[in-house]
Amino acid sequence: MPHDFYTKRRIEFADTDMAGIMHFARFFVFMETAEHEFLRSLGASVESKLDNLRLGWPRLAVSCEYLSPAKFEEVLDIHLMVARKGNKSMTYKFEFHRGEALIARGQVSAACCVFYPDGKLKAIPIPDFIASQIQEAPQGEERGA
Amino acid sequence: MPHDFYTKRRIEFADTDMAGIMHFARFFVFMETAEHEFLRSLGASVESKLDNLRLGWPRLAVSCEYLSPAKFEEVLDIHLMVARKGNKSMTYKFEFHRGEALIARGQVSAACCVFYPDGKLKAIPIPDFIASQIQEAPQGEERGA
Amino acid sequence: MPHDFYTKRRIEFADTDMAGIMHFARFFVFMETAEHEFLRSLGASVESKLDNLRLGWPRLAVSCEYLSPAKFEEVLDIHLMVARKGNKSMTYKFEFHRGEALIARGQVSAACCVFYPDGKLKAIPIPDFIASQIQEAPQGEERGA
Amino acid sequence: MPHDFYTKRRIEFADTDMAGIMHFARFFVFMETAEHEFLRSLGASVESKLDNLRLGWPRLAVSCEYLSPAKFEEVLDIHLMVARKGNKSMTYKFEFHRGEALIARGQVSAACCVFYPDGKLKAIPIPDFIASQIQEAPQGEERGA
Repeated sequence: MPHDFYTKRRIEFADTDMAGIMHFARFFVFMETAEHEFLRSLGASVESKLDNLRLGWPRLAVSCEYLSPAKFEEVLDIHLMVARKGNKSMTYKFEFHRGEALIARGQVSAACCVFYPDGKLKAIPIPDFIASQIQEAPQGEERGA
Repeated sequence: MPHDFYTKRRIEFADTDMAGIMHFARFFVFMETAEHEFLRSLGASVESKLDNLRLGWPRLAVSCEYLSPAKFEEVLDIHLMVARKGNKSMTYKFEFHRGEALIARGQVSAACCVFYPDGKLKAIPIPDFIASQIQEAPQGEERGA
Repeated sequence: MPHDFYTKRRIEFADTDMAGIMHFARFFVFMETAEHEFLRSLGASVESKLDNLRLGWPRLAVSCEYLSPAKFEEVLDIHLMVARKGNKSMTYKFEFHRGEALIARGQVSAACCVFYPDGKLKAIPIPDFIASQIQEAPQGEERGA
Repeated sequence: MPHDFYTKRRIEFADTDMAGIMHFARFFVFMETAEHEFLRSLGASVESKLDNLRLGWPRLAVSCEYLSPAKFEEVLDIHLMVARKGNKSMTYKFEFHRGEALIARGQVSAACCVFYPDGKLKAIPIPDFIASQIQEAPQGEERGA
């Protein structure tokens, strides 16, 4: 039962800013996409439906620490870990490496919600077909820990 | 009856790329926002409803010519002109100036559509409360023409 | 001597995602732009030079908590507070309100750096023409505290 | 000697807008990244150097026609064709398909430039190590033509 996921991503020109490095906000897009790849790998696209309502994962809280700049065309190794599997929410940790160098460390907490056709959303317990496939990562899972 | 609209916008850090200039794709966001400001100035937000269906303006075709680079913190003068008012679509032209210098020239054609709750969309004649307020710009309206 | 700054910003179409709300990563762009407006209000653009080297503020750590969704065309009130003025870094707190409703709370720590022409950067003490103009906000400054 | 290039790309959550489809400006990022993959496949990264100056390809003109909406998680097939190899510029055409369906058609003209350390840029003849590897696509290359 997976508790983590690895993916890779190359930094694009549009990810950079005039400081010549990847713009700090883009790391959150990289995290979100890694999370979606992880859910997809479980057969649980973020576009899943529950009783014909669209499932979604609005963010509760996010953070990122930047340890070293990342540059255009570099390929980042992204490591997603399930830090906490709650009843109605998930917390993921992320590490970004370029080779051996740790570039950034992030965290995302997201609530499991259904979207009603009028745009309203309501937090719900994580459906079993997702929850049953995920477990929390053991402590100290980070590389080198 | 207006046929054009003026707005200003300062280039943000996140608009730039590692070449030190505004990323070319951001010009389209500037055009779209100017278009929305124009519609809002007519009391016709892009979030308008028609028979309780959401109105929207998906793009049919867009283009942009870049004449001079634009840099961080510069303020661009944006001039929107109504190039064509069709039955179910609008075509806008845009000019971006920094002081006297012409930076870029763009064009956007958008279809007037209603969105159904299932996500489908259908082109409709531009509702009268919008169409009645807009006219096409006379030819040769561009600055200096 | 200012320890905070207020600005406003309307949510654009390109700020939204298919959940119909402002994309969570865009809050960081709103924070960054508010920070730059604050620095500019002190006469200290982020584009300042020191001994002919470009000054910049790469991010050390950022975070955001999301309390309520924000939607297209809404105008957010953004309140920047100087949480910490270090020797070589600054920490800002941010609050986003829509009317009375608190939408999100964020934090950004940034290092004061010079950029060398080869792209390298080095942390430096915050130049006096900036540091002398800023003070830390008193504790409990958040609205309603 | 290649005159075209194929790549694929999955639409991310952050590529979408509140209309539930891929935001129109993101197509230009997809085109730019495909162009960079093409150059990289020739051993000619956009980060190439010439006489120790950075090479770059600022855009002269771009356009896109949208034929059908593209949605979250869909995988687009992107076909780049060399429409024109000039002395100092390149023009690429792009087609985006989802399966058999043509989603969008785009075009990008870019000037070959060197960037001086002061940020100035100058158009130059396309260096031979790039120009010698590329040829124009025959007319009528588009799929189905």
